[in-house]
Amino acid sequence: MPEPTPVHDAVEVISAKRDRHELSDSQIDWVVDAYTRGVVADEQMSALAMAILLNGMDRREIARWTAAMIASGERMDFSGLSRPTADKHSTGGVGDKITLPLAPLVAACGVAVPQLSGRGLGHTGGTLDKLESIPGWRAALSNDEMFAQLESLGAVICAAGDGLAPADKKLYALRDVTGTVEAIPLIASSIMSKKIAEGTGALVLDVKVGTGAFMKDVDAARELAETMVTLGQDAGVHTVALLTDMSTPLGLTAGNAIEVQESVDVLAGGGPADVVELTLALAREMLAGAGRGDVDPADKLADGSAMDAWHRMIQAQGGDSNAALPTAREQHVVAAPTSGVLTRLDAMAVGLAAWRLGAGRARKEDPVQAGAGVVWHARPGDAVTAGQPLFTLLTDDEHRFERALASLEGGYDIGTEGSSYDATPLVIDRIG
Amino acid sequence: MPEPTPVHDAVEVISAKRDRHELSDSQIDWVVDAYTRGVVADEQMSALAMAILLNGMDRREIARWTAAMIASGERMDFSGLSRPTADKHSTGGVGDKITLPLAPLVAACGVAVPQLSGRGLGHTGGTLDKLESIPGWRAALSNDEMFAQLESLGAVICAAGDGLAPADKKLYALRDVTGTVEAIPLIASSIMSKKIAEGTGALVLDVKVGTGAFMKDVDAARELAETMVTLGQDAGVHTVALLTDMSTPLGLTAGNAIEVQESVDVLAGGGPADVVELTLALAREMLAGAGRGDVDPADKLADGSAMDAWHRMIQAQGGDSNAALPTAREQHVVAAPTSGVLTRLDAMAVGLAAWRLGAGRARKEDPVQAGAGVVWHARPGDAVTAGQPLFTLLTDDEHRFERALASLEGGYDIGTEGSSYDATPLVIDRIG
Repeated sequence: MPEPTPVHDAVEVISAKRDRHELSDSQIDWVVDAYTRGVVADEQMSALAMAILLNGMDRREIARWTAAMIASGERMDFSGLSRPTADKHSTGGVGDKITLPLAPLVAACGVAVPQLSGRGLGHTGGTLDKLESIPGWRAALSNDEMFAQLESLGAVICAAGDGLAPADKKLYALRDVTGTVEAIPLIASSIMSKKIAEGTGALVLDVKVGTGAFMKDVDAARELAETMVTLGQDAGVHTVALLTDMSTPLGLTAGNAIEVQESVDVLAGGGPADVVELTLALAREMLAGAGRGDVDPADKLADGSAMDAWHRMIQAQGGDSNAALPTAREQHVVAAPTSGVLTRLDAMAVGLAAWRLGAGRARKEDPVQAGAGVVWHARPGDAVTAGQPLFTLLTDDEHRFERALASLEGGYDIGTEGSSYDATPLVIDRIG
Repeated sequence: MPEPTPVHDAVEVISAKRDRHELSDSQIDWVVDAYTRGVVADEQMSALAMAILLNGMDRREIARWTAAMIASGERMDFSGLSRPTADKHSTGGVGDKITLPLAPLVAACGVAVPQLSGRGLGHTGGTLDKLESIPGWRAALSNDEMFAQLESLGAVICAAGDGLAPADKKLYALRDVTGTVEAIPLIASSIMSKKIAEGTGALVLDVKVGTGAFMKDVDAARELAETMVTLGQDAGVHTVALLTDMSTPLGLTAGNAIEVQESVDVLAGGGPADVVELTLALAREMLAGAGRGDVDPADKLADGSAMDAWHRMIQAQGGDSNAALPTAREQHVVAAPTSGVLTRLDAMAVGLAAWRLGAGRARKEDPVQAGAGVVWHARPGDAVTAGQPLFTLLTDDEHRFERALASLEGGYDIGTEGSSYDATPLVIDRIG
């Protein structure tokens, strides 16, 4: 005989966390399910979210909360594929186009990449926004299409369907308007519920830390990374995390089409050194997690097979991977005011400028401009000469330059020749 | 030129309190007003309420929050009355009928009592519920009727209109379902916003402490009392608080009509000693606060003038103060199981029993039974004999006895002759 369903009520669960008690498995199962069904109201869940933010949850509670969010929707299963699967998740950074070269690169190494991505909100761009600048490319695939493309090509980047962790979708939208985004248990369970439900066999987390990242300090980033790695391992997903620097933006571009172009440069064997370095580091972790640590992804960049995988992946989703990418109607060049060495380039300043130029959106229903963004012509440590182009700002709307320029002000420093500059390594730590 | 209205947004205000910052005057003014107007949503205010509960507010913040709630509605003004005004507020207890004899008693002493009361929710009864057991009596008065009755009779007990502190009304309903009732800054500002807006010149707070009270321990009760006294004094209301015991219920009855009868007994010069004691103690504070400390209220009980004021007050609101009060259709007597001394009678157990018998309501739209309740036939310290009636349970619905009896179980102790019993003084402390 089945156990009778335990009965809870919202005030009891909220009060328990408010009073610093651990929530029981049954309280967690009930409240996540009841919230998904609308039995627990938004104003009750937001009070609970604030109590969780301020009073925390322990490892068992977070694992149970994640499991309850997974149970609110469907789970995908890639065990029928002829190759192992590995996925990557980034907590979001400026100029972070790594998914674009990474997915075809790992596919070219024989591991399937089921990358369910999102659109951007705020100063960090979204992978789908970038890919949508390619003429014809479409983000929406059915589960069957996704499975077929993974089997035939080994790489899919597409929009997450509504079926995965609907509790998370509802809760994330609520947290966004109630000041409860910044709770490590809720961030970790939000990310991991989707990745576990997605069914990947291995997972690499790129946890960004620095001014341009959600996590500004390395201790908080490490706590988040450890929490997520534990959740993944407990759920049977081979999970590791890299803590990576996001005080300086990645590469030389932040936007949509311009980041696609930079990604193609990397796949062609060129591109900025930091983008290549991070792409390879994440690829190696994904391959190792999927049991294919014997393959060197650098070879697949060099021999063109990663580029072949890119073309197949884009074309399978309707994209013309050989077409010219859209360009912005207007551009404005910022010249270096003095000669010397670029000692600092702030990721948040660059991210805000790109966002204000139209590369990102303020509300989820806003459109983005494919051609908008920021190109920077030097990275920390590079020599610059007074009058040389330092930034090129791109947008379709001339009136956007003023606020974008304001956000760049104070966002970089030029020192005299020989000045020291922040040389934080790109990969700060590895957890897992 | 007026200052431009400061612009805030809900997430900014929530995040500030979440991160343990003080809220600015302008943030508080904005968020209370915007919530009243529906610009700040329920799910945002509940997150803020939880952050306030867990992170607190300082004296300035609480005063500003209270002022913002007062500013959300109308303020009454009794300065045109020919006598001074004094009011009393109780934080709620079991068998707490004190308002009923107190208002006419103070009126008989020459001080006007503008008592805006509420209905009960949960295990403590509401003053209006008790008075509505008097045939014909109506709780709703217009402001003009209230003013006229105060001028002519000196006492009004009526329902608070919708015009006073509408922000509090909305916020209280929200706190009730989101586990955020138990925040001293929010409790204090809720009570004091209504009492200050009501326009009383003097105010006495009866802050209950004990098992049957909202505040279970004396330190929390004292903090609440001090917070409220400060708020009142800062707003120019002569305010004092008495901390009074609510581990034992007041008097010998908890219900509606039976509490009216006990109140009439007090006005007739009889009634339980503790009810008389607390009525006189609160009356003396109200009179002193209103500048009439020269009058001894005990005289007005003895000479029948308080009883005269009662009849006039009830009759002015349509009540037949000489009519027989409603009685319950069913009764059940609990006999003392052993002989000895009653050493403990738990206020919460008695309050829950009365509530379950139909004297109180679970939801604000529920009706209450006029005749329902509990009569206890001994108080701690009284000798009892095996088989004598200890409790009489009253209800219109026989099926309610079982759950009421269950709540009384373990709610009292009988010791052997000479046993000591809890003899906490009724008035524990005075603050002001």
